[in-house]
Amino acid sequence: MTLDPGTAEQLRGALATVAAIPVTPFGPDGQVDWEAHGRVIRRMVDAGVRLITPNGNTGEFYALTAAEARRAAESAVEAAGGSGNERRADVLAGVGHDLPGAIEAGRHARDQGVRMIMVHQPAGPYLSAAGWLEYHRVIAGALPDLGVVLYIRDPRIGARHIRLLGDLCPNVIAVKYGIRDPVLFAAVARDAGVDRFTWLAGLAELTAPACWTSGARGFTSGLVNVAPGLALSMLESLRGGDADGAMKAWEACRPFEELRAADSSADNVSVVKEALAQLGLCRPDVRPPSHRVSEDVRGQIAQILAGWGLSASEESH
Amino acid sequence: MTLDPGTAEQLRGALATVAAIPVTPFGPDGQVDWEAHGRVIRRMVDAGVRLITPNGNTGEFYALTAAEARRAAESAVEAAGGSGNERRADVLAGVGHDLPGAIEAGRHARDQGVRMIMVHQPAGPYLSAAGWLEYHRVIAGALPDLGVVLYIRDPRIGARHIRLLGDLCPNVIAVKYGIRDPVLFAAVARDAGVDRFTWLAGLAELTAPACWTSGARGFTSGLVNVAPGLALSMLESLRGGDADGAMKAWEACRPFEELRAADSSADNVSVVKEALAQLGLCRPDVRPPSHRVSEDVRGQIAQILAGWGLSASEESH
Repeated sequence: MTLDPGTAEQLRGALATVAAIPVTPFGPDGQVDWEAHGRVIRRMVDAGVRLITPNGNTGEFYALTAAEARRAAESAVEAAGGSGNERRADVLAGVGHDLPGAIEAGRHARDQGVRMIMVHQPAGPYLSAAGWLEYHRVIAGALPDLGVVLYIRDPRIGARHIRLLGDLCPNVIAVKYGIRDPVLFAAVARDAGVDRFTWLAGLAELTAPACWTSGARGFTSGLVNVAPGLALSMLESLRGGDADGAMKAWEACRPFEELRAADSSADNVSVVKEALAQLGLCRPDVRPPSHRVSEDVRGQIAQILAGWGLSASEESH
Repeated sequence: MTLDPGTAEQLRGALATVAAIPVTPFGPDGQVDWEAHGRVIRRMVDAGVRLITPNGNTGEFYALTAAEARRAAESAVEAAGGSGNERRADVLAGVGHDLPGAIEAGRHARDQGVRMIMVHQPAGPYLSAAGWLEYHRVIAGALPDLGVVLYIRDPRIGARHIRLLGDLCPNVIAVKYGIRDPVLFAAVARDAGVDRFTWLAGLAELTAPACWTSGARGFTSGLVNVAPGLALSMLESLRGGDADGAMKAWEACRPFEELRAADSSADNVSVVKEALAQLGLCRPDVRPPSHRVSEDVRGQIAQILAGWGLSASEESH
């Protein structure tokens, strides 16, 4: 079974949205708190989020065992409202590591009713563009009935590699572009095929408006765990061509995203989890090599949440 | 059981050498060719190499399954000449990935008679220095009877983190410094404790002479797979204070290492495997995201091997 053109088109449409990357909450014993995982996802879906991406980097993918990553996909499917036409949100499952492991994770997700996978850039320090292409060709070829989303984090991966991969694998349908350079994004997206793939601004809200002008039709988000309404308001503004509205949302997102980006993104995940903890949604704990934010940053996060009109008491209403 | 001071001192001494990172050869079916793995390692040990590091980046660690990585440690132990006092070379086993996986890999290596592990920098894009410290503290604490070698690849990990980790974990005994900055190396090594740890120049032969001047007493090497005599001659020159001899070896290594470093190290492993293939020692195949070198690079490698006086026919003598 391969992805028929109609389904591919449908999935490309489903990806043109906010791709929420849920956190993976931990309990006091350091194990994953699956109840909290479901709670965080359901709260987003209730708010109108339509795409949930377990096993992304905000989900601390590289700190999870293979068994935990499988369970994260299952938990996301369940929290997104079941499989098939009954689901309220689509699930895009992150896969990575060695090739057999990535393919196995994709098969497992498919068995849960997942229709799309996001492939992490291969780990390790040595990557050739031709080898990158081969890595994705093997995964997409082994899972021809799944939609495949590329996650670009190396500027050496250019339009020609993405276009060639799309030619080889019809099920490669979207690109999450994770390089903070909207000019490069524009060049790559337009040269690789702005309509052939759904383009996601891969560095979230702060890059979304600039990338939207050149063809992005969605963006990934960690902030959406905390303030789904804010991420969705940016999406709505961008979709409606309301640049002022988008930049109003951008300004609201900015202090939070700048905390996450500081010190080479040291606290990228822990800022999100601290905010969720302040809202009473899960513990702030992260696994190494992440680390809990400082007291000072905790105070800044409290101010940001207050500015957004979010508080623990409102959450418990 | 914890590492007693005498053993720690002995292991620190064992690390002050060329840390050979063997390739992981693949067969025509894409599976690991364990016979070739042993052959490449035995050839190095026969030449006088005294430290073998399976599951390093030259061994394509991130492209191996967990089972293959375990077997690579077993194969290295066997090829290095058995365990205990009968071993001809020490084995330093690379471990990484999620914490339970890293600890399990360390236990497995220990069960094979391995006395030291090298911990890969945690994968994934988000790393905080405090989280890096915690990651290594947990691993070193779970394996107190093994010597632990740090592998630094992020300049945010400074002397104070390394020193603190050494204070917390007496079994952290060495640092492979993988940043191409001999001035930073000197500052970090001297501030963290040039005698407390054995310092390895982590970017191989090209950084070894500069780092030696400020306290390095060994270096990691991928080139040693191909030309063990050349790597060992550099070691001997450095140990003997023969700067001219070291730079003569440096010049001999240079074209090979520059091919490996080109294009952000795209061909780092494939250059080594191509050279081994030309010597008839294993196939040139690499796994994605590495990719076989171009025809042009193959020609350059042939010239370098000829310049070193190595050829397939000599190998088969």
